Amino acid sequence: MKNTGRIVVAIGGNSLINPGSGRGNRDTHEVARAVCEELAAIADIFGSLVVTHGNGPQVGYELIRNAQADHIIPRDGMDVNVAATQGIIGYLLQQVLGDVLEELGKNIPISSLITQVEVKADDPGFKNPTKPVGPFYTEEEAADRMKSKGWIMKEDAGRGWRRVVPSPIPKKIVELATINSLVEAGQIVICAGGGGVPVVREGKKIRGVAAVIDKDHASALLASKLGAPTFVISTGVPEVYINFGKTDQKALRAVTAKEIKKYMDQGHFAEGSMKPKIKAALGFLEHGGFRVVISSPGNLVSALKGEAGTTITAE
Amino acid sequence: MKNTGRIVVAIGGNSLINPGSGRGNRDTHEVARAVCEELAAIADIFGSLVVTHGNGPQVGYELIRNAQADHIIPRDGMDVNVAATQGIIGYLLQQVLGDVLEELGKNIPISSLITQVEVKADDPGFKNPTKPVGPFYTEEEAADRMKSKGWIMKEDAGRGWRRVVPSPIPKKIVELATINSLVEAGQIVICAGGGGVPVVREGKKIRGVAAVIDKDHASALLASKLGAPTFVISTGVPEVYINFGKTDQKALRAVTAKEIKKYMDQGHFAEGSMKPKIKAALGFLEHGGFRVVISSPGNLVSALKGEAGTTITAE
Repeated sequence: MKNTGRIVVAIGGNSLINPGSGRGNRDTHEVARAVCEELAAIADIFGSLVVTHGNGPQVGYELIRNAQADHIIPRDGMDVNVAATQGIIGYLLQQVLGDVLEELGKNIPISSLITQVEVKADDPGFKNPTKPVGPFYTEEEAADRMKSKGWIMKEDAGRGWRRVVPSPIPKKIVELATINSLVEAGQIVICAGGGGVPVVREGKKIRGVAAVIDKDHASALLASKLGAPTFVISTGVPEVYINFGKTDQKALRAVTAKEIKKYMDQGHFAEGSMKPKIKAALGFLEHGGFRVVISSPGNLVSALKGEAGTTITAE
Repeated sequence: MKNTGRIVVAIGGNSLINPGSGRGNRDTHEVARAVCEELAAIADIFGSLVVTHGNGPQVGYELIRNAQADHIIPRDGMDVNVAATQGIIGYLLQQVLGDVLEELGKNIPISSLITQVEVKADDPGFKNPTKPVGPFYTEEEAADRMKSKGWIMKEDAGRGWRRVVPSPIPKKIVELATINSLVEAGQIVICAGGGGVPVVREGKKIRGVAAVIDKDHASALLASKLGAPTFVISTGVPEVYINFGKTDQKALRAVTAKEIKKYMDQGHFAEGSMKPKIKAALGFLEHGGFRVVISSPGNLVSALKGEAGTTITAE
């Protein structure tokens, strides 16, 4: 299985955090280690590797910290919060992955790149924010923030009010040329964290916006632009299921894009959960990708061999 | 002045922040723009560019935010705080520098790399922390933190108590191979922010430590290891002076390492201010560097031509 072409692996933000600890602490390292052992094996097989990652819980922490300190120092914009999590999670991944490679006696350079992802200023997502971010507020606190900060907030069934932000469609990976250079050199690149820092173009300038780009969509775009045949989505379940959670639940091992689209149209995949992953996978396959592998940490190498997980191919 | 070899430019953290605003806001962009216009000109002249930067005020913000939120979510280690500032400042620099290059019609890829810098676990700095970080505390608050968190704290003449952390000597740039690849490809690399995330080696693992590496020393090490003939330190004063602040103050335009070392030994350069910069410059020149240029934003291009600033040469 050597030299099987470029590969992009998208890791869920939840698999890189230990809710009981700071993210730089030893037990966070232990959580990340499971993922990094598989990433090291994949890099060894494929000769290079691009890792992307989510940042849901981590950007939530940034928003809480900014909110708690805003009577002392100014808040950062949400674009800056995403950049901070790219620094924090990139550091964790490159350190732990470096440890694993060192133990294996493999010398593969690793880097984490701050990545901007361009979206369209007229993306319909900006008119209809849907992505909940940050802490929960009471109705009174929410009313205050909607008035004073202009936030859009929605009630989350019984749990309180949360800010919602736009989730625009990724159009361009700003740092693509650099990522490409490093992959060409056979290195490991950690990038597009949290779906990338969302930016829009204003003439000759680019500017950060308060939004969250879906990390699987951004990763699919990156995989396409890098000409990677294989795109892996690491998530909380070992396979994609039809009739998920029902008595006739069935795992999908190998399906075509056409077959899984049919299942999606029949409503098998939950909104805000598996459905956006399937949509990202279909987008990648429509733009020339060869296969998408969806599985969970611990099963990724087996899934790449077709022995676990779900593999979706173009035809 | 085309193709004059590799160049490393170290930017002060104070020239990348507007104390009145969040760091992602427009007025922070305006502050950074002055620096980035010069960096673009330098990249165009030299064909590639490595930018390093300080993070003093920014890491102070991170420490305040972590402290304010620690009743809700766990604090990150100081290594993680430095990584966050590399994300935040790297994003700002790559965005604004990208705007400037776009306006000039120059297409040079830019990236910001999360950078770990290895220090020795037995560095004497760990036994004698001297670098003040983060907010000021009252004597009572300081006593509480020294007891509950094991911090070492010192009184700062009349302004209150601050935590002090070790400032160990940088020994190895962990991500050197990647930085080298990108420089070789003629790109602009932003790295080693805040002197790098301080790490120590423990057998086959590396681990973050609560310390701050002097950014000029880390930048000098990086410049040496990249084989750059030229190392630029951008700071708050346009030139290095002898008898600074006195009636016979005199700017140094061109000096040798030997001459400036004599001035240093005579006590002309302030501890914690110009002296560490001169020491970093001397280290770079002793390890094969050709020249160090010290000047302030707005004067860097002139200084590289010998028309402003202070140029120190090996002989």
